[in-house]
Amino acid sequence: MEQNIFQLQYAMDTFYFLICGALVMWMAAGFSMLEAGLVRAKNTTEILTKNVALYAIACMMYLACGYEIMYGGGFFLSGIETVDADAVLKEFAGREDGFNGGAIYSKASDFFFQVVFVATAMSIVSGAVAERMKLWAFLAFTVVLTAVIYPLEGSWTWGGNAVFGLYTLGDLGFSDFAGSGIVHMAGASAALAGVLLLGARKGKYGADGRVNAIPGANLPMATLGTFILWMGWFGFNGGSVLKLADINSSHSVAMVFLNTNAAAAGGAIAALIFAKLLFKKADLTMTLNGALAGLVAITAEPSTPTALQATLFGMVAGVIVVLSIVGLDKLKIDDPVGAISVHGVVGLFGLLLVPLTNPASSFSGQLIGAATIFVWVFSASFVVWYVLKKVIGIRVTEEEEYEGMDKSDCGMEAYPEFT
Amino acid sequence: MEQNIFQLQYAMDTFYFLICGALVMWMAAGFSMLEAGLVRAKNTTEILTKNVALYAIACMMYLACGYEIMYGGGFFLSGIETVDADAVLKEFAGREDGFNGGAIYSKASDFFFQVVFVATAMSIVSGAVAERMKLWAFLAFTVVLTAVIYPLEGSWTWGGNAVFGLYTLGDLGFSDFAGSGIVHMAGASAALAGVLLLGARKGKYGADGRVNAIPGANLPMATLGTFILWMGWFGFNGGSVLKLADINSSHSVAMVFLNTNAAAAGGAIAALIFAKLLFKKADLTMTLNGALAGLVAITAEPSTPTALQATLFGMVAGVIVVLSIVGLDKLKIDDPVGAISVHGVVGLFGLLLVPLTNPASSFSGQLIGAATIFVWVFSASFVVWYVLKKVIGIRVTEEEEYEGMDKSDCGMEAYPEFT
Amino acid sequence: MEQNIFQLQYAMDTFYFLICGALVMWMAAGFSMLEAGLVRAKNTTEILTKNVALYAIACMMYLACGYEIMYGGGFFLSGIETVDADAVLKEFAGREDGFNGGAIYSKASDFFFQVVFVATAMSIVSGAVAERMKLWAFLAFTVVLTAVIYPLEGSWTWGGNAVFGLYTLGDLGFSDFAGSGIVHMAGASAALAGVLLLGARKGKYGADGRVNAIPGANLPMATLGTFILWMGWFGFNGGSVLKLADINSSHSVAMVFLNTNAAAAGGAIAALIFAKLLFKKADLTMTLNGALAGLVAITAEPSTPTALQATLFGMVAGVIVVLSIVGLDKLKIDDPVGAISVHGVVGLFGLLLVPLTNPASSFSGQLIGAATIFVWVFSASFVVWYVLKKVIGIRVTEEEEYEGMDKSDCGMEAYPEFT
Repeated sequence: MEQNIFQLQYAMDTFYFLICGALVMWMAAGFSMLEAGLVRAKNTTEILTKNVALYAIACMMYLACGYEIMYGGGFFLSGIETVDADAVLKEFAGREDGFNGGAIYSKASDFFFQVVFVATAMSIVSGAVAERMKLWAFLAFTVVLTAVIYPLEGSWTWGGNAVFGLYTLGDLGFSDFAGSGIVHMAGASAALAGVLLLGARKGKYGADGRVNAIPGANLPMATLGTFILWMGWFGFNGGSVLKLADINSSHSVAMVFLNTNAAAAGGAIAALIFAKLLFKKADLTMTLNGALAGLVAITAEPSTPTALQATLFGMVAGVIVVLSIVGLDKLKIDDPVGAISVHGVVGLFGLLLVPLTNPASSFSGQLIGAATIFVWVFSASFVVWYVLKKVIGIRVTEEEEYEGMDKSDCGMEAYPEFT
Repeated sequence: MEQNIFQLQYAMDTFYFLICGALVMWMAAGFSMLEAGLVRAKNTTEILTKNVALYAIACMMYLACGYEIMYGGGFFLSGIETVDADAVLKEFAGREDGFNGGAIYSKASDFFFQVVFVATAMSIVSGAVAERMKLWAFLAFTVVLTAVIYPLEGSWTWGGNAVFGLYTLGDLGFSDFAGSGIVHMAGASAALAGVLLLGARKGKYGADGRVNAIPGANLPMATLGTFILWMGWFGFNGGSVLKLADINSSHSVAMVFLNTNAAAAGGAIAALIFAKLLFKKADLTMTLNGALAGLVAITAEPSTPTALQATLFGMVAGVIVVLSIVGLDKLKIDDPVGAISVHGVVGLFGLLLVPLTNPASSFSGQLIGAATIFVWVFSASFVVWYVLKKVIGIRVTEEEEYEGMDKSDCGMEAYPEFT
Repeated sequence: MEQNIFQLQYAMDTFYFLICGALVMWMAAGFSMLEAGLVRAKNTTEILTKNVALYAIACMMYLACGYEIMYGGGFFLSGIETVDADAVLKEFAGREDGFNGGAIYSKASDFFFQVVFVATAMSIVSGAVAERMKLWAFLAFTVVLTAVIYPLEGSWTWGGNAVFGLYTLGDLGFSDFAGSGIVHMAGASAALAGVLLLGARKGKYGADGRVNAIPGANLPMATLGTFILWMGWFGFNGGSVLKLADINSSHSVAMVFLNTNAAAAGGAIAALIFAKLLFKKADLTMTLNGALAGLVAITAEPSTPTALQATLFGMVAGVIVVLSIVGLDKLKIDDPVGAISVHGVVGLFGLLLVPLTNPASSFSGQLIGAATIFVWVFSASFVVWYVLKKVIGIRVTEEEEYEGMDKSDCGMEAYPEFT
């Protein structure tokens, strides 16, 4: 009979991973809609193509070698097709307390949950380089980031390996629950390297220092994308507890849901009000970015704050993201959807929040971890973008940019009857 | 070993709440898309901003005090961060039958499930007052409804408190399983008060008594919103069983899913056919409202009807909603998305259906409950709207209405390249 | 105490069905958005109306008699409202091994999971006959397919009945895990019969043999639809394991999620690259159809392949679907969204893949099963379409087709301000 309890526990933890993973997969749709809504009509088909393709490439490369690099799962997950139920039951029974302890679940569900995180990191890049990067250069970069750059970084953080054999982040007090730094700041670091090599869109920055707004073509789409991300984030953070099937774990998952939602709400309202004070208008795109900033900020530690703290953290993130978007434009770093601010600047902020509520982490550990992630991902990405620039070029021609990438790259318009 | 069974039960019921809550959160996206699709292009950014902001405000105010007013959870949910597993196990063991009985689950999951209901009530309002209400007046009202008006009403119904200390609805035979009245009619009552004070959109009603159709700008968006609501409603009604982890409870949840779907299907088809008979056309927006009407109607009692009854209830609701939309226009009550009909008129109808299948309720109880909810929410809302009207004004200027609220309130168009 | 374990198992398996069913219901939104995005603006309201109505009709007819025909559930599911917990517990205890064995769960959850499959089959039809079929003829056909044609076919396959009392497919080595043939090829067979009787859209095929592209009006919508289908497919295939709550079953569910995702990824990338080679462009709609082809191909057996096999199967499917879409156009079979290729041609391919990894199936069994499904569904559908054509007509007038069906059938435009 005890074995049957173990069977249920295994099944429950496996199902929990799968549902959370499906929610994170759904975030791919969220990024697609958000980015498609925030670019101009003439570049919409192309950004959609990029988003579908990057998700697919991420799944293939992480299967081919990424998971192996990060967690040692075996190339192509060889040998995980079947499970030996008797061995699993022995594993449960062999514990001092057969019930509690780390989760035991299907490795297939673990891969499914992990693979969608890689895609999230890469989705962040596509928004930042939108409207001027060559499609195929972008996809080539996607292969390298998802096969090597992210998995190696992940092996030092969630994987627990020493950074190039030198130091171990966990020992230094680094903690990043669901990936404010490991996923979001990493994606933003890769994006920043690309944006610096790529340059701004034509017409974004006037000769006189003026910043010209380039409005997105479809704000309901962008809003939908934000809601999808908000929903998917429950899986992103909630699944990162890694275990459901006991009282303490399930309560942790509940706190994570509660805090994730609270931080997003705080970020949206703070950005709405702060942008109103700055610009005298209720700025929808800032409000959306505020919600996303709240989500990114709480991601590094959604289980230990109180709901009030989570709300406040989100509010500060909502202010930061507005300042960061304005600031990057002053530096002429052109990021059409604000991804570097939302995921990079606020990702760093999220890491620095952790020691406030989680005594197992330290500020120095967080700073060293953040520096490690940034230096590695930015440098490696910069090299890859640079090689691509020299070999096949990363920027479309001026004429293609003017005409829109949908015609040149995809041969079809996103809204042929509307524009 | 018995304790391990309790652990699994606690985890399962907590997870069930969280998944249902995430589905209800998703309804916020549904209302946003529905309303964004049914207004004109020039008011789309504004309605999107309202929807994102109202959801965020609802989360913040219900955390600040709403939950405390409704259920006595403690301001800001103080003290729920951690759970004492031993105390929980004692609570299980202390029952006569340690297994059955009411659910025991994480309070954080309960808050998460409840908070998204508040947002639903408020979402109903935003559609009815669309295209002419000032954004910041609307948000100010949102604060009051989600902090006080709804929670107080909820304390008399689901909270079990006596209405102003006078009478207890539960004792009178009032029953509202998932909130046809408590959530939907309440939202519609607040909306009606606003609409009466606000007046109709310019051009909606001709001097000669003619009703001019003002078509929505994006029907695929409106359809998507309806499907999102339909899906989210499985969480809304399914989670309202409040317990999953035993045979009887899980079967109840299954019946609720089945009946919720059946009622929506019945409502859609009945509205499609009835509108065809009336207008000689297959009216998509009536069909969508028919589906939503079916959902609202079954919400007061989705667990006791047979699937055939649920279908029939939905069909009647689909007819009622068409008649109500036409009727409100005759009364010059301008509701751009039909929210007062869908959630108010049909919400009342849903309450009155309960005694047909649930012997624990009575018609008199349902009527008293409906009257209590309507009188309180309508009156309190009317006062708040009235004060707002006098102090800051609730209606945009004629010029702003003509130009569209996106320019005046938000400073950005939703579809800058399409119109 | 053992009984409590059974209670949890029953609840877990029931909940698993309901969540998977909700994901499949969500596919109705996916088909709606995909089809709405791929037709011209002037036919968008109509295709949305068809999609909402067909889902609703499928739910009503399957409840009325479809489930009874397929599985013998009793007309209108009579008698399933309540569950006898004691009888269920005896059923568990009566097994040799009280825990393992087939799942025991609420019949209401089973119906809910099955009913959404019928809707999927019918959704396939609506895309193929888009832009020229009369709305009410389509809905009449929907009634017959969902009440009789599909349920009878389903009774021979998943229902286990002999085909017209002659031969039993299961005995011949036919296996179709989640319905590549039973659902997808069946839907495509009904669609093909309709398309042949309906003819091509005006202007699609030039007199000189030229094929004119008729671009879809809203590609972000089509992309969203594809992502929704991708997500919903986790429920479609994952739920088809039919049991979660033990180690082996939950691991199977996990493999199914993993392989479903891998096949879709493979399909998208292969179609993207193959279409690039053929057309010199990154063809978004082919990429979307590639992802869907991967999903359809793996559906017949998602539990036994390795993840690498699933990826490769998906890639081949992605190539096949491009070839098939081009080939059907050569044959002047006009399918505006590629549904016959995605669900029919690739559905057959999926059936033929099964014996490669599942030794319980045979190629001859798969061929006989495929032939049985195709002959029955195509013939029966052809007769119904033919009768409809003679009695009420199935094609709109030339003028209506030119003006768009939104005006003639629905009386409202989908995007009144954009076109």
